[in-house]
Amino acid sequence: MSDTPSSMSNDDALARIRIVLVRTSHPGNIGAAARAMYTMGLTCLTLVAPKRAPDDEAVALAAGAAHILERARAVASLDEALAGAALTIGLSARRREFVGRALGVREAAHDAIANAQHGDVAIVFGTEMFGLTNDELARCAIAATIPANPAYSSLNLAAAVQVVAYELRAATFGTVGWEAPRFPQATYDEIEGLYAHAQRTLTALAFLNPAMPKRLLPRLRRLFARAALEREEVNILRGILARVDELIVDRKRQNKP
Amino acid sequence: MSDTPSSMSNDDALARIRIVLVRTSHPGNIGAAARAMYTMGLTCLTLVAPKRAPDDEAVALAAGAAHILERARAVASLDEALAGAALTIGLSARRREFVGRALGVREAAHDAIANAQHGDVAIVFGTEMFGLTNDELARCAIAATIPANPAYSSLNLAAAVQVVAYELRAATFGTVGWEAPRFPQATYDEIEGLYAHAQRTLTALAFLNPAMPKRLLPRLRRLFARAALEREEVNILRGILARVDELIVDRKRQNKP
Repeated sequence: MSDTPSSMSNDDALARIRIVLVRTSHPGNIGAAARAMYTMGLTCLTLVAPKRAPDDEAVALAAGAAHILERARAVASLDEALAGAALTIGLSARRREFVGRALGVREAAHDAIANAQHGDVAIVFGTEMFGLTNDELARCAIAATIPANPAYSSLNLAAAVQVVAYELRAATFGTVGWEAPRFPQATYDEIEGLYAHAQRTLTALAFLNPAMPKRLLPRLRRLFARAALEREEVNILRGILARVDELIVDRKRQNKP
Repeated sequence: MSDTPSSMSNDDALARIRIVLVRTSHPGNIGAAARAMYTMGLTCLTLVAPKRAPDDEAVALAAGAAHILERARAVASLDEALAGAALTIGLSARRREFVGRALGVREAAHDAIANAQHGDVAIVFGTEMFGLTNDELARCAIAATIPANPAYSSLNLAAAVQVVAYELRAATFGTVGWEAPRFPQATYDEIEGLYAHAQRTLTALAFLNPAMPKRLLPRLRRLFARAALEREEVNILRGILARVDELIVDRKRQNKP
């Protein structure tokens, strides 16, 4: 397979994204970040000088993404973590004075996926308490921010990784999830048959007066037009009407001497 | 203040979003969900029959959002949690057969914010292990899904709340974060002065041959055009060139007998 953009699969692009966690304090956060990554199809995790190495709690919080933890690369410096990256993006909630480009994570994710067609992309998260230092962020080509509540912008580390990973997947595969199941649609004449039946039954019920119909039938037409009736639904509704028709006939019989 | 959409603030719309957690097992997840909510400006949390009530771990994981936990409403049934809601949205990773509308969370968040102009909106999350039951999801007008890795779509509960809360905020306030600081731009003549200076210095350095300039100056122009030079930057670059000029003059003097 060649490396030209046209021949790259979307999964290849996600495989070229490195998530870099710098001086993380709590192994549990590393595990939760691994889970967040893998739910969105990211697999490449780099740990820069973690205060404590991934432990049992990390594995527990990684849940079905424990293999991401096992494969994680641990390095001593941010330099090592960024080596070879064609694009570097650092996360920062706080505004900083010396950054070249600052983007929201949605736009940054689009840049990341575009660049992942040609080379590796590193996305860097700082410590739980203080984020990235100014020096660390200055090594990144783009400062990315998760727009948040100005009164409390402190996302949990793994939660921040989840939002970024989600945006990377959305930039790659779009934002559509599974689709509601579709069953065969009712045809025009089936639907008109339903309205004709409803009109007869509602008239027999004396709920509709054909001489003064008001807006009843247009309202029903509007309701069912929005719902886009399926054949099975028309059959159910006509079945209900037929049962009411029987009841009306029964009552008429009983009322006769 | 009237309730018409035009007079509603964006924060008012977020205040009308209820996050509903159904039969949560781990209090820690409730706390982490509260933190995720508040980072995006959501404040209204409803707990349906939690297996264990919020405890110290929940408060610890809520971090700066402990007041969201304190204010949380606990109810016995989903019915109570949804009462009064003008729109109900249930999260589901799995495709279900009987749902009316299925949307990705981005589109669902736009629907939620549009409806929050007129009434309350409930967004419902199921248990950590199994999500919502079919019956619970069927009570919701919209089934929303977070597009995820088909091989592993199991987001942590609080992580799912974080993504949804993020999309709600993005639908309300947009996706732009803080902006990179801007300093005064260099003017046309300042920039042309820089190029003229660079040409003189690079010629004196014998790095540029004016008779055979190749593409050196166009490449430098392209580089600095992309960067959109600021006045201070032009001054720094001319300062460096001036220092090199001095060095060249020094050397010439030394080479003379």
